[in-house]
This record gives sequence, structure tokens and C-alpha cells, in this order.
Amino acid sequence: MGKSLDYENLNENVKKCQYAVRGELYLRASELQKEGKKIIFTNVGNPHALGQKPLTFPRQVIALCQAPFLLDDPNVGLMFPADAIAKAKHYLSLTSGGLGAYSDSRGLPGIRKEVAEFIERRDKYPSDPELIFLTDGASKGVMQILQAIIRGPADGILVPVPQYPLYSATIALMGGSLVPYYLEETANWGLDVRGMVIINPGNPTGQCLSETNLREVINFCYQNNLVLLGDEVYQQNIYQDERPFVSSRKVLMEMGPPISNELELVSFHTISKGYWGECGQRGGYFEMTNISPKTVEEIYKVASISLSPNVPAQILMGIMVNPPKPGDISYERYVRESKGILESLRRRAQLMTDGFNSCRNVVCNFTEGAMYSFPQIRLPPRALEAAKKAGKVPDVFYCLKLLEATGISTVPGSGFGQKEGVFHLRTTILPAEEDMPAIMESFKKFNDEFMEQYEDQRGYSRM
Amino acid sequence: MGKSLDYENLNENVKKCQYAVRGELYLRASELQKEGKKIIFTNVGNPHALGQKPLTFPRQVIALCQAPFLLDDPNVGLMFPADAIAKAKHYLSLTSGGLGAYSDSRGLPGIRKEVAEFIERRDKYPSDPELIFLTDGASKGVMQILQAIIRGPADGILVPVPQYPLYSATIALMGGSLVPYYLEETANWGLDVRGMVIINPGNPTGQCLSETNLREVINFCYQNNLVLLGDEVYQQNIYQDERPFVSSRKVLMEMGPPISNELELVSFHTISKGYWGECGQRGGYFEMTNISPKTVEEIYKVASISLSPNVPAQILMGIMVNPPKPGDISYERYVRESKGILESLRRRAQLMTDGFNSCRNVVCNFTEGAMYSFPQIRLPPRALEAAKKAGKVPDVFYCLKLLEATGISTVPGSGFGQKEGVFHLRTTILPAEEDMPAIMESFKKFNDEFMEQYEDQRGYSRM
Repeated sequence: MGKSLDYENLNENVKKCQYAVRGELYLRASELQKEGKKIIFTNVGNPHALGQKPLTFPRQVIALCQAPFLLDDPNVGLMFPADAIAKAKHYLSLTSGGLGAYSDSRGLPGIRKEVAEFIERRDKYPSDPELIFLTDGASKGVMQILQAIIRGPADGILVPVPQYPLYSATIALMGGSLVPYYLEETANWGLDVRGMVIINPGNPTGQCLSETNLREVINFCYQNNLVLLGDEVYQQNIYQDERPFVSSRKVLMEMGPPISNELELVSFHTISKGYWGECGQRGGYFEMTNISPKTVEEIYKVASISLSPNVPAQILMGIMVNPPKPGDISYERYVRESKGILESLRRRAQLMTDGFNSCRNVVCNFTEGAMYSFPQIRLPPRALEAAKKAGKVPDVFYCLKLLEATGISTVPGSGFGQKEGVFHLRTTILPAEEDMPAIMESFKKFNDEFMEQYEDQRGYSRM
Repeated sequence: MGKSLDYENLNENVKKCQYAVRGELYLRASELQKEGKKIIFTNVGNPHALGQKPLTFPRQVIALCQAPFLLDDPNVGLMFPADAIAKAKHYLSLTSGGLGAYSDSRGLPGIRKEVAEFIERRDKYPSDPELIFLTDGASKGVMQILQAIIRGPADGILVPVPQYPLYSATIALMGGSLVPYYLEETANWGLDVRGMVIINPGNPTGQCLSETNLREVINFCYQNNLVLLGDEVYQQNIYQDERPFVSSRKVLMEMGPPISNELELVSFHTISKGYWGECGQRGGYFEMTNISPKTVEEIYKVASISLSPNVPAQILMGIMVNPPKPGDISYERYVRESKGILESLRRRAQLMTDGFNSCRNVVCNFTEGAMYSFPQIRLPPRALEAAKKAGKVPDVFYCLKLLEATGISTVPGSGFGQKEGVFHLRTTILPAEEDMPAIMESFKKFNDEFMEQYEDQRGYSRM
């Protein structure tokens, strides 16, 4: 019967879940890196790993919070601006015991209040700090909520396809069922569908949902008695002006009663994305709307098992939702740095889309938001045969070849879900702007040679 | 049928789990605190919340890592010692993108190597960094491992009673079964028992296991084909000299083959306990011994869903396992601060034990290790009746009265498991040393009056 932790004896849900963002491609890329090859990691939205500098002000504040004895040092003013010093004192006053003490399992009350104020300013509707939980990144929040919802394999969650594999992996891990939805198709359900996920702006597809879209989604959830999970971690990452970000909560509130008092909604946000990109710090929150108080208690109880989200990232979340204001010493620098990052991302989104569209058999929509490009790769029949021979899914085959040839580490579209016979890859738009032309050139060279190699002499005909 | 997130429709495992450390007593204490009552939180081992100062050196290093631009500031030498500066540069060189980038899901390779070296120095046996995963605190590691082991309600995990409720809560959440064991009793199993937990030094009981004990436990696990989970988060917290801490892994290695090559062992450690007490930073690791490579891959895959443990705490773990050495500028201060904390804890363990033993109907063992005192409270029959009338478990009834009268927030022994008709409470030994006499006096006054009130005129007879 083997040992307790032999593979055969593991929890089946653990074995079942797949997480392509750190899957075969990532593992191969890590190996190649060890062997000395230069790898361009575009598999995860991890801006600092690709050279983005952190914003100065939040790092000044968190450094002072980590080393509060500096506040008593007569030289502190030589190295830190006065508003960073004031902000550090403010956040330390919200903790009991500084950064080294567990907070309440929901996060520090003072920071949850600041998050509620941010939501109120953003949406113009009141928000209750008691319904906001701080988390170690948004992923942890999503996992907490899905864990509460899913009771067994007959419980389905509607997830957009293509989707971010956090959802497929977590649903598998919790033993539930993923019900894919395509915007233009009607799902055929044989399950007790209990929730619906939207990712806005979209990952991997980069679309921004319009208010009309959101109202339709909310109505649909209301009619079908579904809890809506609004993954809004890319709300700062918008690269066009026609459709600014609107939160699900704002649209819900505008729809008025009974729906605004009844639809169950959980919204997620993070410090890992946007112009902050503080992935490694692991900070996030979720806000619950129209969730029964007894359920909020249960979610609190389960959060308590891990005692407390990390406190430094709670403070960073506080600074993100409550940044320097006009007139503050650090205001101008904060705005300059933030704008610089956002404008560069916008240019990079364009560079990448144009680059992909200049390649043979590659078609790519413009990245309206988020931080990904999701080009469709039209693979010739002979490439499909070669993939089959190699025992690989066709887009995995393509992405592995791309990795070996260029060091560009992407995620095959099959990790996100795509229609039968259609292939994509996902790449982030995060490589440094100055490196982008060379990367796209290297991609084009690989792709066009690949297509040359696998297209038959008769020429390639669209499938 | 109600809404998806109505209490009745939640995952049953979520509803089933209990977590007494942050349960009814904690919630009541939080309420009283809001109403303005001074609360002494001794429910969680949270040293900084009770006034323990962080060690200076690790905070200097992490502040510099958070604000790497300080390293280029000509004034940095005025505020930071040269070895902290060097250490910060060292850790930044181990990251790609500083503290704001996701690391590998197992943690930064360079720090996992430092942890392996620490284990080798401690145990005198080699340790493989590839089998060490960094985590957001030890609790998260325990949850990851239990998730892999538990497949359903027929899977049991042996847990010492009284136990730390992390285990009972997580086992319930994962849908498994807890099989309690008492040192002097034989368990009667009707389940597929798959694992065994030991907490050494013990929580809540504070005992230190001898090498003989550990050998017995290991033999028992080997004979019964159980994976051993060694919760060793209190390995720095030792308050007697007869039984120093010995790791399960060292004892296992000393037992030689075949057992040393076969017994599945996972050991856990943290930066939250010991003389560090950096709970709010959320840093830990687990090390796997004799676990099949395919299983290690699966655990890696599941860890990847959360992308990365928080990076600042990974660096703190690096500093903990690799602290200043003799000759370093910061060595003396680091040792002085660490020793100061540890010696004070030792005195507090004694103060608390003596205090409890001076109280009517209270019996308390000396806290040999960890950071808790677990006195037995011999409740008179009339107190049991009063508790029944109030609809409370007897020790909850006692602890609530204690809280209301004195502000001392403890955890009732029933949260940890105890034998039928025997009652305890758990308190940490963490209140500041100078406050300890007043706290124990206040406890004694409450307890002795409580006993006075509920003992009948005939006098109290032992049950």
C-alpha cells in the first residue's frame, strides 16, 4: 500500500489540480537558467523581476516601520522626507507591537478603515470596514472564498475561458467543478452552479468590461442565484480611454434595490499589480457585499487558523489606498514615478501588439488593460503532427521551441483554456521598454522560421 | 434553498472546524477592549504585542532591503552598522528584483541553502535545500502538508492531546479525522491512520521531549507506516538544562538505516517564536525527509498556486538561521538582546508557575519550553452547575469570568482537548516581566474569590 506520502496515496484533488503559470514551461525555463541560458521570464506578472523599480515613498515608509528606532535617530531627516516619517508613525500607531505582532486575522482595523474609505472615494457608495479582510495577496483571498463555497464535485463555479489558472487550480484543489463560459455561448450545466468569476480587466485576454457588460453579468448572477467573485486586481492597469475601470460594486449599487441589497459579491484587490507591482510583499484585500453575517464569521474563523496576514504588506496596502496628497512633500515624486510606469506600460502594450501582428500566422488583440498579451498562433497542420509525435500539446510544443531558441518564457494558451483547435500563448507586457524591440525581433525571427519549417510547400491554408 | 454563501449552504468542513485560540474568549476580549477595558492578551503567543522589542540587527537589514536606495545614500553609515549594510546587499543579491518580486514558490534558492546549512550545523547531518520550502509562517506549511495527506473522513492523523488547535482546525477543514493520543494510553483506531504530529517543545503543555521519547515516537511511526510531522517552532524556547532541544531529524538520522532512509518526516520551523517573536512578518520553512520526489513535485505545484511566500520574511528567516558571528560589529548586541529575552522568559516561566501554584485549586507544571503555561483548574461541583446553567463549557465559563474581572484573555483548555472532567486554561508567559507580579496577583484574587463563591460550606472535595 506504500507510504502515506507516496504519490499514489496523496489527496486526489492535490494531484488533479494544474497550474500552468508555473508549469512545464516554467520548470524547463528554470533548468535552462541554471545551465547559464539568459531567460526572459514573461510567464508571471512580476514587474520588479523584470527591472521595474519600486515606488520610493511606500518603501521609505515601510523601511521606517521595520526599523522604528530610526525615528529616534537625529539623522533620520537626512535620509527620509518628513511625510514618510509622519506616515510611518501613523501606521505604527495603528498596530499593537509594530510589524512583529500578529494582527487580527482580518488585518489591522485602522487599515481596513482606510481601504473602506478608498472604496467609498472610488465608487461613491459607503463601504463597511468590518466586511473587508486583508490577505497575503489576492490569490489567498480567492482561495478562502472558494473554500467556503465549494462543498463537493457537484458544486460548479462559472469561470471565463480563457481564464487565469488560479481559478481552475483552486477549484480542483477544493474538489469542486469548473464550468467554463465563453462570452458568446450559453453554458450547458449539469451541476449546482454556485458562483461566477469575472476578471476585469481581463487576464489573460486584457479586455476591459463596459458598464453594460457588468450590468448583464450582475443580472445573470441575480437571476441564477450565484455569488459573483470580482477579480479586480488590474484596476490601475488601463491602456485606453474609452472604457475606464468601473468596479462591480459600483455598478451593483447603481442598479438599486432589490438587487443591490441582495446579490452576493466578493471583490478582490492587491498591491502586486498596477503601477505598484509589489508582488513579493504579498498584500491584498477582499470586500464582501450582501454576505450573511454568519458566513462572514465563518470566513473569519477559517482566516484565524493562519493567525494573521503579513503586517508589512497590510501597511503597504494602507499606503496604496491612501497615497501622498497634493501639497505633501512626496506627492510630486509619487505621481511622477506612478505615471512613468503606467505610461511606459501603455507604450509597451502597443509595441507588443504591433510586434505580434507583424509575425506570420500570429493575430493579436490590443491589450486594453491588465498586463498580458494573448496572441493567437495559427499552427500549420505539420506543426500539429510534429507536436503529436513529440507527445506535446501543440501550443506547449511551440512555446518550448520558443523558449529553447530565444529564452522567452511564456505560458501556452492551453493552460488558460481555449477553443478546440485554436492556439495561443500568454506573455506579460513587462520586459523593460528598452529591451522590448529586441525581444519582439527575436520572437519574430523564431516564429517566422518555425512557420517556414512547418508550412507545406502548397502554402498554409486557414483551418 | 437560499443564497450560495448562506451559512446553511457553506462547505461543511468550514463550518465544522474550531479554532479556540481566536474563539469565543478572544472575540469577547476584543469587544471589551473596544468598550475601553484594558485587556492583557495571553491567548496567542504574540510577544511583540505584549511589549517585546524586535532584535535590532534583522530589522536594520530588512529596512535596508526594503529601501535599497538608502545603500547609495552617503549618510547610510550614520544610521546603519557596516555589517547590516553588507548583509542587506547579500540578500538583495539573492533576489531577482528585490522584495517586490515573486520568488520561486518554494522560496529563494539562496535562502533555502542557508536554511539547509543551519540544519546541518544543528544536527550534524547533511540537508538538501531542494527539500526545504519557505512558507508564510509554519502554520501555512502545516496546512500544505496536511492537505496533501488527507483524502477524506476515513483518513486519521494522530495528534497529541492536549494539542495546538491549528491541527484540529486544519484536519477538520481538509475533511479528515483527528485521532487523539495521550502519552500513557493506547489509541483505538477505526481509521486509516496516516500521520502523527508531535509538538516539541510542547504547546500548550510546555514539555520538552527526551531523545528516548523521540526514538520511541519514530519507531512507532515506522512500524505503523505513518508520516511524522515534527512541529519544532519552539526550538529556541528552552527553560531548563536537563533536556536541551533535539530535532526529530537528528534522532532519525542517528537511528541509521533502514529507518533513517525510510521514515517520512516533515519538520517545521518559524521566525514567529523563539527570541525573535516576529509573528507579524509571517516567515517559516518546512523540511522534507524521505518523501518521494513525485510528492515533493506535487507539493511544489500546490504551493505555486499562491505564487510565492512573502519575500521580506524569507530574508528574515535567512538572518535567523545565519545571524551575526563572533567578530562582526553587530554580534555582541545581537547576543545581548537575544539572551536578554530568553533569560527573561525563563524567569517569567518560573514566576507564572509559582503564581498559579499559590492559588486555591490550581495545579501547574513548570514550563520546560515553548511559551505557555497550562494550569489545571479544579472546579468545584457548584461551579460546574453554574456553568451548565449559563450554557457554557465549565472552563469557558471560568475563563470568561476571569476575562470580565481582570482583563486577562486566556484560552480554555477545552480548545486544546483534555480528559473528561479535568479543566485547564492556557496562558502565554509573555506579559512584560515587570507586569507579571501584578497580573499573577490579579489572577490569584479572582481565582480565590471564585473558589470561595462556588465551594460549598462543607468544603471542596476532590472529584
